[in-house]
Amino acid sequence: MTILLSVTGFDPTRWREALLKASPNEQIVLRPASAADEAIRYAVVWKQPPGVLANLPNLQAIFSLGAGVDHILADRTLPDVPIVRIVADDLTKRMSEYVVWRVLDHLRRGMTYRAQQTARIWNERLQPAAADVSVGILGLGELGRDAAEKLRVMGFPVSGWSRTPKALDGIRCLHGEDGLTEILASSDILVVLLPLTAETAGMIDDGFLTRLKRETPLGTPILVQAGRGGLQKDSAILRALNDGRLMEASLDVFEREPLPADSPLWRHPRVFVTPHAAASSDPAALAPIIVRQIAAHRRGEVLTNLVDPGTGY
Amino acid sequence: MTILLSVTGFDPTRWREALLKASPNEQIVLRPASAADEAIRYAVVWKQPPGVLANLPNLQAIFSLGAGVDHILADRTLPDVPIVRIVADDLTKRMSEYVVWRVLDHLRRGMTYRAQQTARIWNERLQPAAADVSVGILGLGELGRDAAEKLRVMGFPVSGWSRTPKALDGIRCLHGEDGLTEILASSDILVVLLPLTAETAGMIDDGFLTRLKRETPLGTPILVQAGRGGLQKDSAILRALNDGRLMEASLDVFEREPLPADSPLWRHPRVFVTPHAAASSDPAALAPIIVRQIAAHRRGEVLTNLVDPGTGY
Repeated sequence: MTILLSVTGFDPTRWREALLKASPNEQIVLRPASAADEAIRYAVVWKQPPGVLANLPNLQAIFSLGAGVDHILADRTLPDVPIVRIVADDLTKRMSEYVVWRVLDHLRRGMTYRAQQTARIWNERLQPAAADVSVGILGLGELGRDAAEKLRVMGFPVSGWSRTPKALDGIRCLHGEDGLTEILASSDILVVLLPLTAETAGMIDDGFLTRLKRETPLGTPILVQAGRGGLQKDSAILRALNDGRLMEASLDVFEREPLPADSPLWRHPRVFVTPHAAASSDPAALAPIIVRQIAAHRRGEVLTNLVDPGTGY
Repeated sequence: MTILLSVTGFDPTRWREALLKASPNEQIVLRPASAADEAIRYAVVWKQPPGVLANLPNLQAIFSLGAGVDHILADRTLPDVPIVRIVADDLTKRMSEYVVWRVLDHLRRGMTYRAQQTARIWNERLQPAAADVSVGILGLGELGRDAAEKLRVMGFPVSGWSRTPKALDGIRCLHGEDGLTEILASSDILVVLLPLTAETAGMIDDGFLTRLKRETPLGTPILVQAGRGGLQKDSAILRALNDGRLMEASLDVFEREPLPADSPLWRHPRVFVTPHAAASSDPAALAPIIVRQIAAHRRGEVLTNLVDPGTGY
């Protein structure tokens, strides 16, 4: 049995080694194959070149190398086989680290203190207690739920929003269009962890940013975006920062990645840029999870963490 | 009955207002009084001018405006009355915010990513999982215990050290001289939350920094210091940063405060400086706690959170 590993945008060597280590008896082929290959039963992909999965007559499932699957669904020639999203403790924890780190950096006025340090200014800045700063999380999947719980432990009042109703201990859960209006209008810090789907594409636009609170204990609202770049209009975020609707932003994702060198976001004094690294997949931690799912499927067990192609996540 | 409020180093107006609001029927006097004043029963102080408490014949207790009391004990003319340290949820939570914020910033390579942003470099840096980075906390009082618990929730393996034995769920607790050697030799990130006493004064010196680990998953060890400036030798920390014993440091306290403008710590690329603001006392949250203790003492109840002048904390 053969597993196809097909990625673009980064060097797949570490993934290949990790898959081989987790599955020493399988063949891992690494290529944008175009010819039919009857041996390939499973594909492990990140932004596979369009068409690469179309000519595999015995393909049984496609695994994403990350939490998102929009990069898989973008391929118009996708065969009709189950798509599996990775759900891994390692990935979830890394995303929560990023979210708690960024929320605390904004609460604790990290940007201001770094500017003061550069100017050698010793000046304590008052700040609200976490209990007085509301955090709203858009997206209550595995990642959103874990981040919400950890922010709650740090003392923040946390609300979460999802398309369909959910219930979480100690978290105010909102849903649907009315819930979205409410969470945008009530969050001091807004964290975006949504998947990229037909419904969410481009949603962080001028209209969205105008629905945010006018005043918060920290000034105006703060945006932490670690979902997908396709959710946002970079130019709308810039306008909101410059006209005061947004006070600060931590952005891990962008409309175009890598972020073009001429983007004003790089040099904006109130923006913190990371290179789509909020929850980077560690092959050593994630490959065994994929290999275990493949082994279970071959024993006749059902696949878990399946993607619904209808909703796109 | 009169309460004396005596502080140096900052404007006491907000404290005076908060004490009056919490205790509208008492008189709050604000001064470095030298003449005897028989009406004063309680003193609320931060770095009181030496001698200011010596001529108060009816003084019954001294309250510190912060978690530390070294600033009170430094006065050689201190009368023999109970000294009460403030223990407040608000203060504890703010310190834990600082500790979790700084530990995550180091884990997530905040300094590197900020430098990359300035240079418009899009480059993901690999990083270990929190589970592979050990955090050691020196000091397991109210502050150390809460920080330890929150770091544990974030996924770090946490050890704590105190002078005398303690036991905490899920935290490796060490004590005494052997315990100190062990925690210094085994921590990837070292957080200092000790009180300043005769025993701890100047302890973060060259010898101390040489007892740290040689290699960690992040390079070499990282120091987070939010105890008291008197615990450290600024020059020893600088030497350890420059010869590689320390990789990075977050320093909230310094030998001299404000940190002198000519200190090389201000401009060190691997040091993050805050102006003794890790757990700043919010008068609105803390004054009612002091006033409640005073009222309870007047009803004949015992004072809690008393300082042992023998150990100095």
